[in-house]
Amino acid sequence: MNTKAYGAHAGDKPLEPMDIQRRVPGAHDVQIEIAFCGVCHSDLHTVRSEWGGTRYPCVPGHEIVGHVTAVGPGVTAFKVGETVAVGCLVGSCKHCRACGEGLEQYCEVGFVGTYNGPTQDAPGHTLGGYSQRIVVDDQFVLKVRHPEAQLAAVAPLLCAGITTYSPLRHWKAGPGKKVGIVGIGGLGHMGIKLAHAMGAHTVAFTTSESKRQDARDLGADDVVISKDADQMKQHIGTFDFILNTVAASHDLDAFTRLLKRDGTMCLVGVPEHPHPAPNVAQLIFGRRAIAGSLIGGIAETQEMLDFCAERGIVSEIEMIPIQKIDEAYDRMQRSDVKYRFVIDNATLATG
Amino acid sequence: MNTKAYGAHAGDKPLEPMDIQRRVPGAHDVQIEIAFCGVCHSDLHTVRSEWGGTRYPCVPGHEIVGHVTAVGPGVTAFKVGETVAVGCLVGSCKHCRACGEGLEQYCEVGFVGTYNGPTQDAPGHTLGGYSQRIVVDDQFVLKVRHPEAQLAAVAPLLCAGITTYSPLRHWKAGPGKKVGIVGIGGLGHMGIKLAHAMGAHTVAFTTSESKRQDARDLGADDVVISKDADQMKQHIGTFDFILNTVAASHDLDAFTRLLKRDGTMCLVGVPEHPHPAPNVAQLIFGRRAIAGSLIGGIAETQEMLDFCAERGIVSEIEMIPIQKIDEAYDRMQRSDVKYRFVIDNATLATG
Repeated sequence: MNTKAYGAHAGDKPLEPMDIQRRVPGAHDVQIEIAFCGVCHSDLHTVRSEWGGTRYPCVPGHEIVGHVTAVGPGVTAFKVGETVAVGCLVGSCKHCRACGEGLEQYCEVGFVGTYNGPTQDAPGHTLGGYSQRIVVDDQFVLKVRHPEAQLAAVAPLLCAGITTYSPLRHWKAGPGKKVGIVGIGGLGHMGIKLAHAMGAHTVAFTTSESKRQDARDLGADDVVISKDADQMKQHIGTFDFILNTVAASHDLDAFTRLLKRDGTMCLVGVPEHPHPAPNVAQLIFGRRAIAGSLIGGIAETQEMLDFCAERGIVSEIEMIPIQKIDEAYDRMQRSDVKYRFVIDNATLATG
Repeated sequence: MNTKAYGAHAGDKPLEPMDIQRRVPGAHDVQIEIAFCGVCHSDLHTVRSEWGGTRYPCVPGHEIVGHVTAVGPGVTAFKVGETVAVGCLVGSCKHCRACGEGLEQYCEVGFVGTYNGPTQDAPGHTLGGYSQRIVVDDQFVLKVRHPEAQLAAVAPLLCAGITTYSPLRHWKAGPGKKVGIVGIGGLGHMGIKLAHAMGAHTVAFTTSESKRQDARDLGADDVVISKDADQMKQHIGTFDFILNTVAASHDLDAFTRLLKRDGTMCLVGVPEHPHPAPNVAQLIFGRRAIAGSLIGGIAETQEMLDFCAERGIVSEIEMIPIQKIDEAYDRMQRSDVKYRFVIDNATLATG
């Protein structure tokens, strides 16, 4: 089915309108008319091939919300008209230990990304949410239970939301726990909202005094300016868990020393240039850990969406027409967005 | 009480005989005639002030075994003639959360090291096991249940043993688990013995083919030459836990990629020069962690000694008279010891 999309033909080319083909829904497929798609840093890295390995044409987008327009005969969980979402994954092997545990993001064979992943569909790799519609295996489709009016602001939950929710759950953020969120961007602002909603004492770290009130408004119980050594010092050895959403290379030791004994700092961003080597003594004298975490599995993503729907949690967004995507990328690189751009996919129809 | 010891008067001076004073046992003190004392890398780093902060005169030694020669009136757990041991700690605050949990090594006020720690005794800092006797708070004295003939080989359990035992227990080495031990030195050789005794499938990593049979003899189920990329590749994503005993700066990524999802690599050595910065993507794509661990608490040290006594586990040692300590340090720096030097403290009497 012919579908209008926006994508790039090469890493050094801007995004432009293009027509792509979506497959006819198979027995277990769900066809979705995309209403909104969030704009993630990964979109920019991939479309510009900054991580290498990008296949062109590249249509990014993995924070997808929309409505079911058709289902295959084997689909029982979804029906036409339903509001649904698709996140970073549209496939996995379904048989390895990770898939068996509902952790498809760690599929041992390799998950299929919503864009730039392997597929038998033309052109041989998956094409993402900067498009009018998408056809997805029903096991990778999620239900949206938020009010329809919030739909655009739900989109970023599919990546920014689950990327922060999953480690917060894994490391047991909740009442009685002191949790730090480093960085107040697309991911960090969701980290603050979610940690607060889980009942943790939530401390936001930012380099800029100007974000203090914003962080409070998002739900932070306390805000620490991470450049201020005196402020940082007051928190040494007090955190159960720190979720570090900053991908830019920075001094990790400044945060690991704030962990309690047996505390963990989890990184969710891959830096372009490595962080300075961490101080091993700080890990040893406190049995602390530095870990990583990758998005979340399908079951947990549904759990996150339901958790957010029950509590009225959505992202803070700025809506753009697809025609402004390059400008949005530029602003995103300057961190000039509060806190996530979301594309109004209806604007694709206008070319 | 006047006591013969070996120590240094400055970081650039060799160790030499000296007389030190031990306090008269207080109500809760145990006076111990030291039979043997293991030689740890920390002794060398401290006596040469390579970590900074060494107070002189410095008498090292924190792998102490011996016999009780006197007890204070408040001591009920030990009696004269009993075989006992003292490890890396001779004091802690006893009131913080860590002490309350029996994790005195993470005392929030700071534990008192067996040497170079704060004390009211002359000369104002603790003096260690390169001496004829020591007087220790009974809460920091351990019972040795090994046969007397094994006593010298028990000494290194007090640091090398507990430093490897504690993380192996904490990260649940045991049947059904695949555990790696990186480095086959003083710590690593104990790591192999202990992981094997706990029932884990134990894989030793070494850079030298010549240590393959040695590692097997120590109990390794498999040996991997870490310089051999093909051998390493066969183990990608298969380890539940890796205990890395190598303090020299090295590529951590070569080992983290061998971890399963949710696996941890624990470092127990502080490198003089930092390890190269770890690859964050390898942590993220597998929810892996790099952690640290410091020796062990008193209760766990006793548990480790009992575990070893029941199974006949001791260190592999080379006995030296105290007069050969400088030569031993030189050889230890060249890794020319299988696997731990132990001082025969009777040789202190000859000056």
